[in-house]
Amino acid sequence: MKEEINFTPSCPFPFEQYPTIVMAHGGGGRLMKRLLDEMVIPTLNAGAISEMHDAAVIGCPSGHRIAMTTDSFVVNPLQFPGGDIGCLSIYGTVNDLAMAGARPAYLSLGLIIEEGLEMKTLWRFLESMRNAAEECGVRIVTGDTKVVDRGKGDGLYVNTAGLGFVPENIDVRPHRIQIGDAVLVSGDLGRHGIAIMAQREGLSFDTTIESDCATLHKHVQALLDENIDIHCLRDLTRGGLSSALNELATATDLCIDLDETTIPVAGEVRAACELLGLDPLYVACEGRFAAFMPAAQAEQAKQILQTLSPMIQPQIIGKVAAEGVAPVILHNAFGGQRVLDMLSGEQLPRIC
Amino acid sequence: MKEEINFTPSCPFPFEQYPTIVMAHGGGGRLMKRLLDEMVIPTLNAGAISEMHDAAVIGCPSGHRIAMTTDSFVVNPLQFPGGDIGCLSIYGTVNDLAMAGARPAYLSLGLIIEEGLEMKTLWRFLESMRNAAEECGVRIVTGDTKVVDRGKGDGLYVNTAGLGFVPENIDVRPHRIQIGDAVLVSGDLGRHGIAIMAQREGLSFDTTIESDCATLHKHVQALLDENIDIHCLRDLTRGGLSSALNELATATDLCIDLDETTIPVAGEVRAACELLGLDPLYVACEGRFAAFMPAAQAEQAKQILQTLSPMIQPQIIGKVAAEGVAPVILHNAFGGQRVLDMLSGEQLPRIC
Repeated sequence: MKEEINFTPSCPFPFEQYPTIVMAHGGGGRLMKRLLDEMVIPTLNAGAISEMHDAAVIGCPSGHRIAMTTDSFVVNPLQFPGGDIGCLSIYGTVNDLAMAGARPAYLSLGLIIEEGLEMKTLWRFLESMRNAAEECGVRIVTGDTKVVDRGKGDGLYVNTAGLGFVPENIDVRPHRIQIGDAVLVSGDLGRHGIAIMAQREGLSFDTTIESDCATLHKHVQALLDENIDIHCLRDLTRGGLSSALNELATATDLCIDLDETTIPVAGEVRAACELLGLDPLYVACEGRFAAFMPAAQAEQAKQILQTLSPMIQPQIIGKVAAEGVAPVILHNAFGGQRVLDMLSGEQLPRIC
Repeated sequence: MKEEINFTPSCPFPFEQYPTIVMAHGGGGRLMKRLLDEMVIPTLNAGAISEMHDAAVIGCPSGHRIAMTTDSFVVNPLQFPGGDIGCLSIYGTVNDLAMAGARPAYLSLGLIIEEGLEMKTLWRFLESMRNAAEECGVRIVTGDTKVVDRGKGDGLYVNTAGLGFVPENIDVRPHRIQIGDAVLVSGDLGRHGIAIMAQREGLSFDTTIESDCATLHKHVQALLDENIDIHCLRDLTRGGLSSALNELATATDLCIDLDETTIPVAGEVRAACELLGLDPLYVACEGRFAAFMPAAQAEQAKQILQTLSPMIQPQIIGKVAAEGVAPVILHNAFGGQRVLDMLSGEQLPRIC
């Protein structure tokens, strides 16, 4: 990452004195305490961390269940068009909570930092985390910092775990998927994987393809607020649309029929995929989901998502059937069909 | 780690076909699904993971608050006398929950695996996790698996986040520490750090010093069950007794006077520390805590801990004072005193 960082640090950390991470920043002593007190905590604006307790203690709103999830982030490179490991590590976990119908509330943050990482780089990712957390309305309430020797990491790995609250009347999960359900995708596919790939390989296209990484809980909330009876949600991360739908079809022992002509892929993403020999239906997104709901509500749901994000092309792409020749089938414009199989090797390593 | 692994796999994973981790085991496709379905989930006996949902949804018992914490584990070597990264990653997070007075309940598990790790080694650590989780009465309900390129990790990094429940009448936190409180340590100090150091450096002593890594929530529960009014708890991990007490004294603006003659350190640990030039008061434990409570209850608390674990020498080591020349003062047998300062550099990197 060679980009010049032009900012005046607004946090009290003495960047001149400690320009890079050293092993002792993870040692539990004075240097680690200064890193936490003078950079991590003030930058993240982390509430409960500041009481210096081993765990955060928080209330559970009555009439709710708890949703819990975790994701580690090892994306390479750490920064890419449209995002960085900081915001990705917030959105990724917030989105997993949203996929369970939960209102995201609290996050934990585990940093595994490689010795030698530029201190200002770390700070910038922390700022990106804070901004994303504010946007999502979640608070980072507990954390942990480890430092590994030079060469034993890759700059920065991040883990976040998330805690959210599910109202009693919400039940969003794979086993609610029913025969006849419509399958809707919240927007066009493949942007995140292509953005990472282009950055990593130094490719440039006419238009810079930016990652779609973004929070999804607002979209889910908008659907729930309008009484869409969402049966199941799944974000389209590693393995893309193909893996997500194959997993759900297999878990529920149902089949999914897709109309290939309706699956939204932007022209520039399609062109990049052709150039790189990739299939956009297998490429990861970080701000898209598939939703299952009664077919009668699908058009209304599409309108709600379109109003919220006019640019990202939500589409009804298929329906759930009792049986078929394979778990997921693609029907093309000419009446032909092919199996959309699960990704078997590794198409794009370390995209999140 | 050259030790021979002699066991017959009882999980359905085809070890002969995939003897080591490859990048695609983190790719979101078929290979990752097999790793999860045929090894990780059956080995961990993970309940809610098996529904293949993005987040686990769990109930909150009424009249309780939620405790949340996280720890990453980058210990080197992955296995050491008395434990390994598997059980350590369970005990560490369970203990952080216990330090907040919580009953540990649920864990998330984030694996960051280096390409090339022996599949059986991974499996053995998963088994160690399951056994520790069963012992602690916690369930691993959600997880994430990432694979990083050979050379970009160190075998295995683990993150766990923990969720526990705190009864309404329990309030254990730094700001309840009061002048006159007794300071009790739950057992002898320094074993974990010395066990790691000996393993790493190939040192051998007359007696093999084993890590003290263990769950602490049973000890906390025993004290609470007997109505000990615990004001604060802190486990003595990175930075050892010194960092823990300095952090608490600083956070509360109080001082801690310690009687050096009462601080329990086993003879073989003291000898190893002398040989290695280490101070046992700075060496990490993974199964010891300091507890603050009214002085009148300290002797009873010590008896309770002694009954529970006769071998580990709980001791009352000092008391809280309004002021002093430094946050933490050690008084020796001859009436002298010295400041027990916070660790300033890095004594033992990557011990957890």
